Amino acid sequence: MNPVELIRKKRDGNTLTKEEINFLINNYTKNKIPDYQFSALLMAIFLKGMTTEETAALTESMLYSGRVINLSSIKGTKVDKHSTGGVGDKTSLILAPIVAAAGVNVPMISGRGLGHTGGTLDKLESIPGFRTNLSLSEYKKVIRNCGAVLIGQTKDIAPADKLIYSLRDVTATVESIPLITASIMSKKLAEGIDGLVLDVKTGSGAFMRETSDAIALANSLINTAKTFNKKVIGFITDMNQPLGNYIGNWLEVYESVKVLQGEIRGDLLELSVNLSGAMIYLGGKATTIEEGIEISQTLIDNGKAFEKFCEMVKAQNGKVNYIENPEKYQKSKVVKKIKSEKTGFVKAIDTFGLGMAALELGAGRMKKEDKIEPKAGIIFYPKIGDQLKRGDLIAEIHCESAKKIDLVSKNLFNVIEFSNTEILRPELIKKILY
Amino acid sequence: MNPVELIRKKRDGNTLTKEEINFLINNYTKNKIPDYQFSALLMAIFLKGMTTEETAALTESMLYSGRVINLSSIKGTKVDKHSTGGVGDKTSLILAPIVAAAGVNVPMISGRGLGHTGGTLDKLESIPGFRTNLSLSEYKKVIRNCGAVLIGQTKDIAPADKLIYSLRDVTATVESIPLITASIMSKKLAEGIDGLVLDVKTGSGAFMRETSDAIALANSLINTAKTFNKKVIGFITDMNQPLGNYIGNWLEVYESVKVLQGEIRGDLLELSVNLSGAMIYLGGKATTIEEGIEISQTLIDNGKAFEKFCEMVKAQNGKVNYIENPEKYQKSKVVKKIKSEKTGFVKAIDTFGLGMAALELGAGRMKKEDKIEPKAGIIFYPKIGDQLKRGDLIAEIHCESAKKIDLVSKNLFNVIEFSNTEILRPELIKKILY
Repeated sequence: MNPVELIRKKRDGNTLTKEEINFLINNYTKNKIPDYQFSALLMAIFLKGMTTEETAALTESMLYSGRVINLSSIKGTKVDKHSTGGVGDKTSLILAPIVAAAGVNVPMISGRGLGHTGGTLDKLESIPGFRTNLSLSEYKKVIRNCGAVLIGQTKDIAPADKLIYSLRDVTATVESIPLITASIMSKKLAEGIDGLVLDVKTGSGAFMRETSDAIALANSLINTAKTFNKKVIGFITDMNQPLGNYIGNWLEVYESVKVLQGEIRGDLLELSVNLSGAMIYLGGKATTIEEGIEISQTLIDNGKAFEKFCEMVKAQNGKVNYIENPEKYQKSKVVKKIKSEKTGFVKAIDTFGLGMAALELGAGRMKKEDKIEPKAGIIFYPKIGDQLKRGDLIAEIHCESAKKIDLVSKNLFNVIEFSNTEILRPELIKKILY
Repeated sequence: MNPVELIRKKRDGNTLTKEEINFLINNYTKNKIPDYQFSALLMAIFLKGMTTEETAALTESMLYSGRVINLSSIKGTKVDKHSTGGVGDKTSLILAPIVAAAGVNVPMISGRGLGHTGGTLDKLESIPGFRTNLSLSEYKKVIRNCGAVLIGQTKDIAPADKLIYSLRDVTATVESIPLITASIMSKKLAEGIDGLVLDVKTGSGAFMRETSDAIALANSLINTAKTFNKKVIGFITDMNQPLGNYIGNWLEVYESVKVLQGEIRGDLLELSVNLSGAMIYLGGKATTIEEGIEISQTLIDNGKAFEKFCEMVKAQNGKVNYIENPEKYQKSKVVKKIKSEKTGFVKAIDTFGLGMAALELGAGRMKKEDKIEPKAGIIFYPKIGDQLKRGDLIAEIHCESAKKIDLVSKNLFNVIEFSNTEILRPELIKKILY
């Protein structure tokens, strides 16, 4: 096989065979196909697409470029969730303990924040002492003892994905459904899961702004999961406004604790129990998603979910007293309250802009090497459809630098678009796909 | 400006500005944009195309990446010809002396053979002593004294093209009309010409198999030439069979000599005088192409064209006695005659296959580094529409190795497709575009 011939084949819109895809991925991973050929291939895939079979073959090649974890020695089903990312999305922290408390294992391998979206690992690491870099034997031990674990991607999981993702990032080939699918699924399938719940977000704070693109991505992920005989459910959910009110690493841990303690309700609780309900259903501990949702709510109400969260934090070396008494956590040096300068109904929120503002404050990173300030972030109160009056509190900014706060607070007024007439609240869950 | 943003812009089908194209070419040439980004850009250009303005801007950037020769000190107009390449295409050797004999300068910078097509430089270098690597001052001296010169591309002409062409070759981005246009025109415009005649070939032995693609390329080349205020005429010509009968470097020199001496007529003569006629017209020495053709024929008939060829060969250090007495040239070790095994009308000829067979014999190269055997090649007699009988001579194979001849001669029967009914001869000149 000749890489140029295979690039030409894809360029001309033809279908690559499984053997051809294996050849390309194996040789690229072994550094036998140079970056300049692989990036031409990526652009051809970006513009010409891939069939379901090609996407599955690509996923498989990338999956077997590294280690596939075998969890068969651990009793019970293993179900994970993947979200395509958004602003204020901290459902993993809430649903993992709920699902584990319901008796379904959650072996979750997560990522870090990049750009306007946060990452589960950064959030967890804001808990003093919390370790996300467990060894594989520690990872297995925590699942066995606790039913849920949350770690970072290890070097030996889907190494092809790391290489390919870095190249996509610098060649404008990121937003491709088959490439995104293979990247997500090669990592998730390496976890040794039986089932997967997908949260594909759409709207101003999502990577897929259009609902039709989100549906196409969800279907591609679902088809690929099915090829590997995994149970799968895909949610299409709204990301036209932050999920919950807290944006920033420790701020999101705080909000998650409050949801698990039953003190905060609203969209964050609603989405979390829908996703955990679907996971419990896929894990065989409920006969429908609805029953899974009821179980989830009960586990919050009776304190079992929060108890499990504390157990998880402890198992991964986190200081549980920070979770039990979040007020103990050191406050940011500067906290500024922002009040509305206008009166009207909230028509739209520039959620991407909000995510970028939080990043500016230190809550996120533009480049992988950037450092994160765990306490920094924004508590943002308005929701689409709310009626605001001049002087109403709209946000609280947490930061270590007064200068940065001034910069960000100026922009914060612009993220809200007002309307004089009443505005319908957007549907949180737009579609559930099987 | 950011390369990723510009790749994304082209990927999404948008138009790049002249400044953006300059930024890309200048930085790639200076090694500040890596190959992997440039190849993604090339694939995006391949699949999304370029406007006439973008193509002209790309040509200009590539042209000014190197030296632009100034021939204003040399009296008279300067007109060149460019052919997109084919099998048996040796018109440059014939038309350059004709046009120079008519009083129009021909400052020709040519290429080498690659793949199934031959190259003018390789053909000329089969003449003992012939030098194609003249310095710029020698180049000017030969044009001034002789009116025609045929050399190879120097390092300082369009260096961006050399870099980009090498990358296109290994990333399946060769057959792109804007990229081909910029590659051809950046080199031709560097010669310091006033006019250009294009021979864009179509058919089984051409890079553009479809006539519609050839017309599109011709129009792109013509539009770009006009942007630079050059006079231009484009011929769309048939390459469904070899041009003339001789394929291989010395064999083609031999056939050119015989055409210039008026001893061989047919398609090769017809196309050569059409192209030279157009060049003489663009050079202002004829009022129509037809008059240019008449002048060309006269210059053959009165011996002036052949005389000019000898003068050219001498000016570039070639041994003229080999041209005057081609029989003096050493014969190939093995010469094998091939006779037809079938009876019928020649319906089609796999011209690409013939070119590849000649390459196998040593007449061409697969890789730039490959050595050429100047005497090797094929004399192939049948033309589409000819009636062949079993036992008729169809070809003569010239080679240094009997083993290679056996291999090639087996395949040679398959290049002819027969028909039981009469076949129309294809039109040699399909279209003339201005």
